[in-house]
Amino acid sequence: MKPLRVALLGCGTVGSEVVRLLHEQAADLTARIGAPLELAGVAVRRLDRTREHVAPELLTTDAMGLVTREDVDIVVEVIGGIEPARSLLLAAMKSGKSVVTANKALLAEDGETIFGAAREYGADLYYEAAVAGAIPLLRPLRESLVGDHVKRVIGIVNGTTNYILDRMDSCGASFSDALEEAQELGYAEADPTADVEGFDAAAKAAILAQLAFHTPVSAADVHREGITEVSAADVAGAKAMDSVVKLLAICERVPDPEGRNNGGRGVSVRVYPAMIPRSHPLASVREAYNAVFVEAESAGSLMFYGAGAGGAPTASAVLGDLVAVARNRVGGTRGPVEVTYAELPVLPMGETITRYYIQLDVADRSGVLAQIAELFARHDVSIQAVRQEGYGEDAQLVIVTHRAPDAALAATVEGLRRLDIVREVSSVMRVEADEIA
Amino acid sequence: MKPLRVALLGCGTVGSEVVRLLHEQAADLTARIGAPLELAGVAVRRLDRTREHVAPELLTTDAMGLVTREDVDIVVEVIGGIEPARSLLLAAMKSGKSVVTANKALLAEDGETIFGAAREYGADLYYEAAVAGAIPLLRPLRESLVGDHVKRVIGIVNGTTNYILDRMDSCGASFSDALEEAQELGYAEADPTADVEGFDAAAKAAILAQLAFHTPVSAADVHREGITEVSAADVAGAKAMDSVVKLLAICERVPDPEGRNNGGRGVSVRVYPAMIPRSHPLASVREAYNAVFVEAESAGSLMFYGAGAGGAPTASAVLGDLVAVARNRVGGTRGPVEVTYAELPVLPMGETITRYYIQLDVADRSGVLAQIAELFARHDVSIQAVRQEGYGEDAQLVIVTHRAPDAALAATVEGLRRLDIVREVSSVMRVEADEIA
Repeated sequence: MKPLRVALLGCGTVGSEVVRLLHEQAADLTARIGAPLELAGVAVRRLDRTREHVAPELLTTDAMGLVTREDVDIVVEVIGGIEPARSLLLAAMKSGKSVVTANKALLAEDGETIFGAAREYGADLYYEAAVAGAIPLLRPLRESLVGDHVKRVIGIVNGTTNYILDRMDSCGASFSDALEEAQELGYAEADPTADVEGFDAAAKAAILAQLAFHTPVSAADVHREGITEVSAADVAGAKAMDSVVKLLAICERVPDPEGRNNGGRGVSVRVYPAMIPRSHPLASVREAYNAVFVEAESAGSLMFYGAGAGGAPTASAVLGDLVAVARNRVGGTRGPVEVTYAELPVLPMGETITRYYIQLDVADRSGVLAQIAELFARHDVSIQAVRQEGYGEDAQLVIVTHRAPDAALAATVEGLRRLDIVREVSSVMRVEADEIA
Repeated sequence: MKPLRVALLGCGTVGSEVVRLLHEQAADLTARIGAPLELAGVAVRRLDRTREHVAPELLTTDAMGLVTREDVDIVVEVIGGIEPARSLLLAAMKSGKSVVTANKALLAEDGETIFGAAREYGADLYYEAAVAGAIPLLRPLRESLVGDHVKRVIGIVNGTTNYILDRMDSCGASFSDALEEAQELGYAEADPTADVEGFDAAAKAAILAQLAFHTPVSAADVHREGITEVSAADVAGAKAMDSVVKLLAICERVPDPEGRNNGGRGVSVRVYPAMIPRSHPLASVREAYNAVFVEAESAGSLMFYGAGAGGAPTASAVLGDLVAVARNRVGGTRGPVEVTYAELPVLPMGETITRYYIQLDVADRSGVLAQIAELFARHDVSIQAVRQEGYGEDAQLVIVTHRAPDAALAATVEGLRRLDIVREVSSVMRVEADEIA
């Protein structure tokens, strides 16, 4: 059988692992595909390094030349970033190649262009590695649940921030100490912005929402808050509520007030640190692991768990896609095409329904609670539980609200800050579960 | 766009749910497929009942006539059992239909015939619903992990037995009381044999092993032990070890002594109740839920969790497959074909490496432990931990072994039963984790 020729774009942590697996698993891959895979070329930035299992003559700095070469069947892109990745993938699809990419930034920022090109040119486009590493998550959403009605996707999709929050929870560490430790262990990069400010999670949330709701969502549509403001006091406050703080990516349908079954008013896509009870399955996701909950009308609650990053797990996802597109080429078929027929609006954060946990330093005098309760009532926010801790100068109030529009909750917090009797609003955290009180 | 015509075989719990979803989600399904789905006929055993959303003229008792009709594109089989399901699916594929089935018994008992027919006739064959209900498990194994090297699949794949064992653990109930409760709640059938004797789990294990190891495995190859012999004392013994008893389906590669990377000596596929530590993620799977752990070389450990049975979750999996085969027909393509190129032998249970937990009533006199230790040594079984509980007449020994071939462990237990100083071997349970001591 004629070999299928693979062009690899990028040969860093993931790329070199892909090369190693292509080499070591060659016999198995051939048997599973029905034809051998052959490396046609590897595009790198600089030629001055030798790469294991790559003949020097396969290396090139001319990525565009490589992806349009006639003897290339499949293009695997693990460069990341928007350009030149976008131009390379578009050129590859235009010239009839099948494409495997791990590029979450590109798919989240400009998925419509990439998906549109796949439709236009009839090209296979697979991207399992773009979200949650080796955890098979996109394929289940794209294919297994395609006959169901997904209501909600909620998950931990960034390992770096989960490691930091886990350390803050288990050792009482501050954010900066936990970040430093994560950097020493290689879980966080020297410039951790993309992780700790939630950009990485927001890109993944955009891709998940798009697949779950068949509606175009880009990274810019995602409400995003990072974890840099999460304090040891926030984590301790959560602990006192038998809860943990996790950076959550949440994609959900907002039901229509008239209760129509499908579509609803729109979708809400957001990333922020939130409190969840320790009994929630996501609470037990430790260290740099990822896990995603999917709630669908018929399937019920499903959870997917595994390593969300790293060279080997990401390469496993890339290889799975590579076998899929290779099999499709051998069989003369192609994989599923993204359909974003639903065109649901992405609602602004202010209209999203959430719950708040609020901790206040207050003057301990009579009438304080009445004044605070009156403020909540004015914003139409109902209090689920209130607890006073300490006395006199140290008096603290902990308030957990019922569900309300985020804008009303935020306005209530603003109002609290302006009250004379409130010395400080010491912690504000969203709550993502009904059980916390 | 011309509608795709669907023949449904069976209209029980799952079938009627499929009909409901086809009706209620019609607009969404059309958008996702690119063509509407239309019910061409429903094969039932008796015509004397009306079915919601099914026009009476669509009902027929002539299933064979229905699956070979020219105006049928897709056949959905939710009858279960070997015959007539096998003949119907073979006839359907032969006459060019795409097939979706939830029939684990058939695929486990005679998968080669069914998969062979799909290859021969070039028919699409999807069967996600056959294992673990709506949990997307087969598609990840068939597709996402197809570029990886799966080492082990270990899971809770039968909800009935998990419910019973969970009740025995949480309430100290006996097996028969817990079974009765499960029957009252509808978790167990009037004749619970298929569940409690492990036949259902063994069928699923055969399907999982086949996909994970690309090797033919049938239900008859699976070593199977049910939970009817699990006593309240076994469960209490596990509790004392901070462990739980779960009915596990285990599929694993047995490494080659020379340590070659691929294949190995063969595979071991087995179903039995075993102790796992409470800290193991599978230990926290409660009630009738299912969960499956997959360990792959590059992907690491992945877990899939959800409802493993029930009309709606199973129908969700059927619908996902239905959309997939419908999309394939619209696009003129077809899905992945099973390849069982590896042909690895399935090893007998005796050669499988396991660990035992053994509880003995012994005479409390000097030399007892020496005699017992000598017996273990004779069978080349190494003891990891031994603990004496009680004194005199009530003396009990709890022994946990290191890993050894199952045949040697079984022979050791036989030897113990014949020792004068052993009054009773009161509990024997396999241990599936390294942490228990």
